[in-house]
Amino acid sequence: VPGFVSQARGLAPERIIRLEEDRVVCLDQRRLPDAEVDLECRSAADVAAAIRALAVRGAPLIGVAAAYGYALAAARGEDLAEAARELGATRPTAVNLAWALREMRDSGSDPAPLAERARAIHRDEVARCRAMAEHALTFFDPGSRPLTHCNTGGLATGGAGTALGAIVLAWERGLVDTVLVDETRPVLQGARLTAWELHGAGVPFALIADAAAPSLIARREATHVFVGADRIAANGDTANKVGTYPLALAAAGTGVPFVVVAPSTSVDLATSEGADIPIEERPADEVSERYEARNPAFDVTPAHLITAIVTEAGVSRAPFPQSLREAAA
Amino acid sequence: VPGFVSQARGLAPERIIRLEEDRVVCLDQRRLPDAEVDLECRSAADVAAAIRALAVRGAPLIGVAAAYGYALAAARGEDLAEAARELGATRPTAVNLAWALREMRDSGSDPAPLAERARAIHRDEVARCRAMAEHALTFFDPGSRPLTHCNTGGLATGGAGTALGAIVLAWERGLVDTVLVDETRPVLQGARLTAWELHGAGVPFALIADAAAPSLIARREATHVFVGADRIAANGDTANKVGTYPLALAAAGTGVPFVVVAPSTSVDLATSEGADIPIEERPADEVSERYEARNPAFDVTPAHLITAIVTEAGVSRAPFPQSLREAAA
Repeated sequence: VPGFVSQARGLAPERIIRLEEDRVVCLDQRRLPDAEVDLECRSAADVAAAIRALAVRGAPLIGVAAAYGYALAAARGEDLAEAARELGATRPTAVNLAWALREMRDSGSDPAPLAERARAIHRDEVARCRAMAEHALTFFDPGSRPLTHCNTGGLATGGAGTALGAIVLAWERGLVDTVLVDETRPVLQGARLTAWELHGAGVPFALIADAAAPSLIARREATHVFVGADRIAANGDTANKVGTYPLALAAAGTGVPFVVVAPSTSVDLATSEGADIPIEERPADEVSERYEARNPAFDVTPAHLITAIVTEAGVSRAPFPQSLREAAA
Repeated sequence: VPGFVSQARGLAPERIIRLEEDRVVCLDQRRLPDAEVDLECRSAADVAAAIRALAVRGAPLIGVAAAYGYALAAARGEDLAEAARELGATRPTAVNLAWALREMRDSGSDPAPLAERARAIHRDEVARCRAMAEHALTFFDPGSRPLTHCNTGGLATGGAGTALGAIVLAWERGLVDTVLVDETRPVLQGARLTAWELHGAGVPFALIADAAAPSLIARREATHVFVGADRIAANGDTANKVGTYPLALAAAGTGVPFVVVAPSTSVDLATSEGADIPIEERPADEVSERYEARNPAFDVTPAHLITAIVTEAGVSRAPFPQSLREAAA
């Protein structure tokens, strides 16, 4: 795909997801790390199904996927309003989806410019990842042992990643000793996807049970917590994969920096605070196929527990209502 | 087994573990809930192996198991000092093991009185469970939705349980709406053992990913947190299954009561504070068979996050150095 800058390490953006003439092709993340299998989506409905099933996930990447799905719908002569409705309804928490679909709707209905607009959204996400990682370097010192949650790498963004992109860049600069990775139940994005990416990049890491993270932070075996975001409210409250909030509680109680790394496309100035962010409840059988279960997929970390929010625009700190407005401008 | 009071609901104590003439027979907890299979231990070394492998687990129950293992060693003419050493080395964090072995050593070396002493330790644990549950009732109101971690029921005690025994009694008294159960990775004591016990007792519950618990507490979908303990230091700092500390952080931040339920045999006045409690690091392959992993099995909740500690002696509150000394007297 022309226009992509190649990645020194990690996944090529077009390996993660790409638009072809009559299909959207993406790496099926449900099969990783056991198999690297492409999933071919032949309609916007196929793309929506891939997002719902977590074959494609990660807030920035689902924005890219929705843009490609919309462009595919235009190429196939599908009803674009219906395609946008179906793509937009797949995941309620992340805001990137709604943003990408607005961008596409504002680009008319002709297939060629829509395909170009979708690829530009993907290229921009790649560029934002690079900028975020550079800005986040300021938090690392030699010997850092960052802890991270879920997957925020290439597989979550289509670029180099948000929090994980920053960690990998810091490791390349000699600033990281080892990485602690939450396995991230129930879907195990940490144990499957982050482990696969770090292993591929040659970065030393150890998986941990999610519930072990707070005590490892309290014992200062982790020196920093870096996470992504599905939606950042105007006041800095941040929705992210469930299990992020306990990391912030432990970090705040211990004086360990808790840093959110996310593109400005994840900042939602129209949502004033975390309580207004819808929290997706996913199917119970992801938790247990045998017994009753509850499965909230996200939690909200209140702004007062967050040390900084890094976007492609730079490092935002409290008071977030001001700094985020500037970052998202 | 004479002397046991039958349990209205739940597991008979002798079904969980019992001493026979030439063996210790216990329910193999590794196989639950798929199969109810007895494990026969023919020597103190067999009992030690069962404890190490988590076939028998739960702080109070490993105390009972160690006592039975010591009595079995006496019946077989094994070296009692060596049996005590091997049994005592199986799990470093819980203090019940050391307590039970001291009790046994102080009862001489004749097989018959040692068997009787071990059975008395088991009977006493059953009685302590009943007393703890009665004392803990004070925390429940109609409609309570307690959240619990790991397994603290019959399978952890040989009696009715500590935290889970209290929850089941409160449910029988009409005070519990539903129970939220942490699945408790990596060994899934919640998803396998607590779910099996609650299902058997007819108590409504929902399993959750461990990392989801703090946000459900913050949203007050849980009204109380009840947990057990592996060791309670003299100042009230409490070591329990890893993942307990984040529950306490969330509860304290939200004003939800965080209650530890444990027999006085889990209180260790000789350990002044949590930092002095050894934290067992279990095999990494419990977390991942594919990638590097860390596996601390316990964490320490500082006393200032604990609302109350319920023992068979009653409800202890801050200042714990005084109240626990009275409870353990």
